[in-house]
Amino acid sequence: MSSSITTTSPATPSRPRSHPGLALIDRLTAIVGSSNILANRDELLVYECDGYMLERTLPDVVVFPTCTEQVAAVVKLCNELGVPFVPRGAGTSLAGGTLAVGGGVMICLTRMRRIVEINHRDRYAIVEAGVVNVWLTRALAGTGLHYAPDPSSQTSCTIGGNVGTNSGGPHTLKYGVTVNHVLGVEMVMPDGSIVWFGGPTRDNPGYDLTGLMVGNEGTFGICTQAIVNLARDPEAGRTFLVVFDSIDACAQTISGLIASGIVPAALEMLDNLMINAVERAFKMGFPTNAQSLLIIELDGLEAGMDREARAVEAIVAQHGGQLHKSVAFRTRQEPEYKAIWKARKSAFGAIGRISPTYCTQDGVVPRTQLPHILREINRIAQDHDLRIANVFHAGDGNIHPIVLFDERDPDQVRRALSASRALLEECIKVGGSVSGEHGIGVEKLEFMSKLFTHDDLEVMAAVRDALNPKGLCSPNKLVPIGCGCVERTHPGRRGAA
Amino acid sequence: MSSSITTTSPATPSRPRSHPGLALIDRLTAIVGSSNILANRDELLVYECDGYMLERTLPDVVVFPTCTEQVAAVVKLCNELGVPFVPRGAGTSLAGGTLAVGGGVMICLTRMRRIVEINHRDRYAIVEAGVVNVWLTRALAGTGLHYAPDPSSQTSCTIGGNVGTNSGGPHTLKYGVTVNHVLGVEMVMPDGSIVWFGGPTRDNPGYDLTGLMVGNEGTFGICTQAIVNLARDPEAGRTFLVVFDSIDACAQTISGLIASGIVPAALEMLDNLMINAVERAFKMGFPTNAQSLLIIELDGLEAGMDREARAVEAIVAQHGGQLHKSVAFRTRQEPEYKAIWKARKSAFGAIGRISPTYCTQDGVVPRTQLPHILREINRIAQDHDLRIANVFHAGDGNIHPIVLFDERDPDQVRRALSASRALLEECIKVGGSVSGEHGIGVEKLEFMSKLFTHDDLEVMAAVRDALNPKGLCSPNKLVPIGCGCVERTHPGRRGAA
Repeated sequence: MSSSITTTSPATPSRPRSHPGLALIDRLTAIVGSSNILANRDELLVYECDGYMLERTLPDVVVFPTCTEQVAAVVKLCNELGVPFVPRGAGTSLAGGTLAVGGGVMICLTRMRRIVEINHRDRYAIVEAGVVNVWLTRALAGTGLHYAPDPSSQTSCTIGGNVGTNSGGPHTLKYGVTVNHVLGVEMVMPDGSIVWFGGPTRDNPGYDLTGLMVGNEGTFGICTQAIVNLARDPEAGRTFLVVFDSIDACAQTISGLIASGIVPAALEMLDNLMINAVERAFKMGFPTNAQSLLIIELDGLEAGMDREARAVEAIVAQHGGQLHKSVAFRTRQEPEYKAIWKARKSAFGAIGRISPTYCTQDGVVPRTQLPHILREINRIAQDHDLRIANVFHAGDGNIHPIVLFDERDPDQVRRALSASRALLEECIKVGGSVSGEHGIGVEKLEFMSKLFTHDDLEVMAAVRDALNPKGLCSPNKLVPIGCGCVERTHPGRRGAA
Repeated sequence: MSSSITTTSPATPSRPRSHPGLALIDRLTAIVGSSNILANRDELLVYECDGYMLERTLPDVVVFPTCTEQVAAVVKLCNELGVPFVPRGAGTSLAGGTLAVGGGVMICLTRMRRIVEINHRDRYAIVEAGVVNVWLTRALAGTGLHYAPDPSSQTSCTIGGNVGTNSGGPHTLKYGVTVNHVLGVEMVMPDGSIVWFGGPTRDNPGYDLTGLMVGNEGTFGICTQAIVNLARDPEAGRTFLVVFDSIDACAQTISGLIASGIVPAALEMLDNLMINAVERAFKMGFPTNAQSLLIIELDGLEAGMDREARAVEAIVAQHGGQLHKSVAFRTRQEPEYKAIWKARKSAFGAIGRISPTYCTQDGVVPRTQLPHILREINRIAQDHDLRIANVFHAGDGNIHPIVLFDERDPDQVRRALSASRALLEECIKVGGSVSGEHGIGVEKLEFMSKLFTHDDLEVMAAVRDALNPKGLCSPNKLVPIGCGCVERTHPGRRGAA
């Protein structure tokens, strides 16, 4: 596209931040009721940041609509008054995706938490945006079905938020990310109209706008309901915990598994620092001197499972891995199985025991670059005099280095930010990208112009501006405004070269 | 969206159709060379229609660019002169997707046919848009990899065209449609800029514009290259041919298979008329009095295959099906296996032996509605005094009724069009849609406003107008201009009700 990017997105509003217009508050109260609004500064403090703790900004007011029509009415009011607005679910974004940049109205969807319909025959569910991810799978217990995307934060994150960021999780290696499981979404568009995209059947004609809406990070509107596909529980499964005395041996095992044609349901790696944090918190009996731990999970039909398991064990042995434990399971509700994944998914929480603050990064590298990036992370940690723990989705090269620091020490904060930037830049350098599943949010805006060309970004901006012409909806997220056009490589180009 | 749909799309150009400006021809010739352009009326006749033979319109000129830069230069020239343009691959569209509505320049991609790169390790290929679908799989023979989407027209249709219409095929039941296999696309945008979306790795941050581009039917620009995922060949497979003495028994078998949790690689149904046409053409030994034939294919690991095969046989027997043949295969290159699929994929051609002309329809119904829709198709055939043959992807409810008629008889043409419309309306009535894989093209524009609400269509138009603001690129395709706002149901709404 040859024209320059139009920057219709809003400037920071000029209203005094601590005194939102009384008219606004009164009219919002009339829409959602007095028990569903917060405007007191002390109460608003909870909403000044999300899981990304390195940036903070106060919304002017937070509303908790209880139905789609209320969301639409709030959005129409914001349009009338020219006030920016931003959706928020559980606030588990690790990239500042729910920050109220420039203040305005935060629309919190957590009181829209009905599971509207579960259709076993056609295997879909319709849920409101505020339904917590794990509630749906719990509601399906015993039916032989489950909702596949399982982010580590699944006990608190909402499905609306998962839609907004196209969340992944440990089992997305085999089962795909959120977009692969969303059949339809109801959106309140930036002008307040209510539009359904997709529906309970696949094969919808027309543009794939459902796919476009997933991962829009709130910049195309607010997801209020989703129709999600329900996956069949596997007939059988096997989970292996394998320890290695070097990171390289573990990385080679991962390559070996993928090359063999086995598609594990999950393939997760923890480094020594992480093993120790988890061990301290969960007493799983891991050898604390192991340099890395690999969780390998198989699932599928019972027939063939033993043979596949033996193939995994052979590949592990070949690369010097030691089988610490192997758990056969028939459902994902079995206690021993659940204990393993509780430990893995609480790994971030476990870090709390060894560091006052941490920043979880989210980068992607080609799988073959895993050993390299792990060495680089180590180097970056030393250069910045910080500890960096690693836990990640090894199967798809999605790394989650966790930078440990003390937020009370400004110099440590500065070094943590610098280390984060350095490791993301290294991801780009080796042909990867800066986000696998957490999104761009506000944290990674600056990287978009390093990943994409000016033309790429212009197309993104053109689509955003078509759907969000006033720029009031989630301003300053995902697509940078007025991108600086430095020289960039591009993933497509790189592959073609 | 509350504003009305903007109709920036072009009116029919006022230039005399048979005399494209000499300046245009000269300048196009300068771009592509004199051997890559057709402007003579006789030569243009080949390009007046595609696989949808019920509508015809002549382009003013056809160019055959040999590289992306030539496509971009042609598009820039069209912009300069205000001439509409439309991409075309092999012209196998069954919905008039490549018709040059309003004349203008047809950009034929068939001379961009290089397989640019095959990367075995990371399992992707980069191909130019004019590469024929089956060429890629042939190029991969013996590597253990293949390109999964396999439309019936795969020996002639191009991958660029597959991207444009998000093509399916018999094996999409298990493996997904084109969008599930496209990692990136190079597009010449409607203004002539060249933009890459996606790349060889998954997990690209930003909007899912790659997904948006797949299935855009040329309205967002022209796909010039694609990066596609390569699938591993299955370790083993089993194909069953089963005959039934009633359509209902066949439909019940399909439901039984799906309900059992088996995911067949393919599940294809032929009715009696189709069995006879195929038998006459291919001498497969099918019982010509069978009311329906079901092709059931399993693939996957060798371990467990026998057990799954026995489960299939039990379900078939339970519903009164008779196993006509069962073929075990290790690769899809084995002669007996290939013969079955050659017969299935040539079914449309085989119809040529029993009818001078035919129109292949493409509808979708919820799987549970298959017996109903088949009865309705029969009724519609009788009401219109026409024969309708059926061959379709039963597993996902994607029906392909083939309306037989003689195009030399205007009354038969009228009845064929009326029957097509009636059966698509019945699909909508039972909760389905009017296209599973062939696209909307020009044929089904009128149905879009029956499937979607005004708000839905406005969002589609907003995105189209943002990317194709002058409307010169593939005018009058996919999204109707200035849709009339009658009352409509909507798939999302219906499911939620």
